[in-house]
Amino acid sequence: MADVFEQDQTHQTLQQVNQALERGMFVHVRRMLQDMEPEDIAHLLEACPPKERQILWQLTDPEEQGEILDELSEDVKDGIVARMAPDKLAAVAEGMESDDVAYVLRSLPDRRFQEVLAQMDAADRHRIEQALAYPEESAGGIMSTDFVTIRGDVTADVVLRYLRMKGELPEATDALYVVDEKNVLIGHLSLATLITTQPDVQIIDVMDDPDEAINVEMDDSEVANLFERRNWLSAPVVDANNQLVGRITIDDVVDIIREDAEHSMMSMAGMDDDEDTFAPVMKSARRRSIWLGVNVLAALAAASVSNMFEDTLDKMAAIAVLMTIVPSMGGVAGNQTVALVIRGLAVGHIGDSNTRWLLSKEARVGLINGILWACIIGGVVVLWKGNLVLGGIIAGAMMTNLLIAGIAGVGVPVILKKFNIDPALAGGMALTTITDIVGLSVFLGLATIFII
Amino acid sequence: MADVFEQDQTHQTLQQVNQALERGMFVHVRRMLQDMEPEDIAHLLEACPPKERQILWQLTDPEEQGEILDELSEDVKDGIVARMAPDKLAAVAEGMESDDVAYVLRSLPDRRFQEVLAQMDAADRHRIEQALAYPEESAGGIMSTDFVTIRGDVTADVVLRYLRMKGELPEATDALYVVDEKNVLIGHLSLATLITTQPDVQIIDVMDDPDEAINVEMDDSEVANLFERRNWLSAPVVDANNQLVGRITIDDVVDIIREDAEHSMMSMAGMDDDEDTFAPVMKSARRRSIWLGVNVLAALAAASVSNMFEDTLDKMAAIAVLMTIVPSMGGVAGNQTVALVIRGLAVGHIGDSNTRWLLSKEARVGLINGILWACIIGGVVVLWKGNLVLGGIIAGAMMTNLLIAGIAGVGVPVILKKFNIDPALAGGMALTTITDIVGLSVFLGLATIFII
Repeated sequence: MADVFEQDQTHQTLQQVNQALERGMFVHVRRMLQDMEPEDIAHLLEACPPKERQILWQLTDPEEQGEILDELSEDVKDGIVARMAPDKLAAVAEGMESDDVAYVLRSLPDRRFQEVLAQMDAADRHRIEQALAYPEESAGGIMSTDFVTIRGDVTADVVLRYLRMKGELPEATDALYVVDEKNVLIGHLSLATLITTQPDVQIIDVMDDPDEAINVEMDDSEVANLFERRNWLSAPVVDANNQLVGRITIDDVVDIIREDAEHSMMSMAGMDDDEDTFAPVMKSARRRSIWLGVNVLAALAAASVSNMFEDTLDKMAAIAVLMTIVPSMGGVAGNQTVALVIRGLAVGHIGDSNTRWLLSKEARVGLINGILWACIIGGVVVLWKGNLVLGGIIAGAMMTNLLIAGIAGVGVPVILKKFNIDPALAGGMALTTITDIVGLSVFLGLATIFII
Repeated sequence: MADVFEQDQTHQTLQQVNQALERGMFVHVRRMLQDMEPEDIAHLLEACPPKERQILWQLTDPEEQGEILDELSEDVKDGIVARMAPDKLAAVAEGMESDDVAYVLRSLPDRRFQEVLAQMDAADRHRIEQALAYPEESAGGIMSTDFVTIRGDVTADVVLRYLRMKGELPEATDALYVVDEKNVLIGHLSLATLITTQPDVQIIDVMDDPDEAINVEMDDSEVANLFERRNWLSAPVVDANNQLVGRITIDDVVDIIREDAEHSMMSMAGMDDDEDTFAPVMKSARRRSIWLGVNVLAALAAASVSNMFEDTLDKMAAIAVLMTIVPSMGGVAGNQTVALVIRGLAVGHIGDSNTRWLLSKEARVGLINGILWACIIGGVVVLWKGNLVLGGIIAGAMMTNLLIAGIAGVGVPVILKKFNIDPALAGGMALTTITDIVGLSVFLGLATIFII
């Protein structure tokens, strides 16, 4: 079978590398790294604690460092780049794709940015400055400027001879772009079509229409959605005048697709989606404490609700014992809806045309599960505490809270999105605060009315 | 600019379609659908409530239904297929890729499965039965059996003439596979190389080694990781004898990458990752109630902890008021770690070689944030309740719980993974149960010792 670098192998290699490093066998490690592909070295670095990572990086082949940086995730890349001297960084940048160099430079402080740029040769500097001209999260920011253009009025045979003369095509080339004398995109020709066309046929007669062009200013997530929906392998990028400026290939888009999908999960837990798993302790602690601070406010809000019912709690401890159940169930039910809605918003399934339908559906789902669990929990409480009224109260609160959870689960992310606040980041926390406050108020309120 | 089907446009179209349906203008809707690409119709169907979806489906062009089904997400596909007659389904299957037909057939009850298969013509049936021979979530389950093979001992010119004679290549072909007389894979030749090679050169001298072959039994998530790491556009699939059996292209892999990344988010919220946003109410309610049932047990476990301290709660209501704060903070802090670890496990960064390092890092992060928020919350409680001891108790409980949250946040998903339980599904719930129980026990325990 093939030479496959499987997950287990990463950790075997990592263990071997760790042992070799501990024994100071640097030459041995250097040789191990020389036998590995840049993408596998990148994977190994990402799976390393900071100290080992720094040592390993020193042992990689300087010729390969550009390619390795290309493959690293952002947070890890930043950490390595921050410690490199400007002249070394400039040298490494030569082996990198221009969009990746632009990314690296953007992450540097202004002065170092200028130092690195000054160290590059003129051609590289020009190439990078072009890439820097486009926003990072746009089609222009992820496109490559390395592509092959041809004219429409030549024959397939002429194109084939031209390509043979060139000798090599840019990486991942699956199509050639047909432009006029003003560099305006008039069509594209897949290699498959070129190959199966008779030699004397004119390109203009077999090329496809340029309807797959992407505007250079399009948001990168939208580019990713288009690639995914249309099953493209690559697409030309044009400016406002329809002039060809670049090419986006699926391998750049795959990274964006994964990042976008991971963003939802990490944000819902209050994490940065490019957070390095092996980041230094202080850095992690600082980042996360912000989110904990938001939760402190939510928890204190819930506590002030209980505080309003202090007399009730004072009179019957069983109420205090049971008061966490209703908010807990509401939080879980609401977060199910929030997760569904966040995904729906991200892939573009939810919009003005169907929000109302969805709201009514989730309210009914909440009500049905509310009734179900109201009966069960009510019954458990009657058996446990021998108090029929208490059972009825918790059942009523449960039903109300799961209904509210369904409604808020749709409403909160949709409203956040309308105000341009990231629903994945703020949705879960806002929802939990609502279900905590509603759950506690209704349960303690009913208890105050009917028991005390 | 290009003909781009943007997100806003989906909802504009959907609104137009809804209005036309309400007015019974079915012919108009049918004409609108005829102007759309299959992948855009699929997107429209996914954004539709069930009733409209069923009507819209009836109005799509039967010739295009296969391609539309190909593009639909699983849950939506199941819903539509379940209502189709066997002969119609068999007809539609002709226009579909064999891996998608296999998926559809697998979702049917046994009897209908056989009925549909019986309605197909012999060639189709053979093609589908081959696809059904491999497990759904393996390389064999996602591969296509449509590819071009060539011999190594011919010249580039012969290959070009052969391809011109063929006239058309399978979709997304970027490479040809070189096999020997026993169909054993001996290399592959990218179209780019073929085009730039001189006509009289032998294939065997310019082809690449077959080191990119995927074993037909490899897990599909692993295939996706490989594609992502290696930046492949396509890869040959071989069986245990190294015989070529299929080809996987990046567009199939992109779907798996998104599904895998979405799986983590949806599972953490207790949802199925292929849950249809617009599923019928009863179906959604039934699915979700299972997860709510798990949470009832967790909530009752927490309530029994409070119950053990009923005397304490009876004597001082302020304790009941404050008792939800420590579990809440522990749950949030622990889930930050869980999200990080689940992502790390999914992409293969976390393994035996670095679990201990990560555990110690997260414990320290938990301790630092524990101390920080212990001071803040302790201070708030002293000011609010005017009780120095109560402030000290909540501070101590907070510190302990955030430390435990950090340790459990790494430990729980790693241990679940060892026992082959999906950490994304069970991790968050298990963690919250731990932080609830620890938080309540420590806070109420300290209160019982020092105050009552």
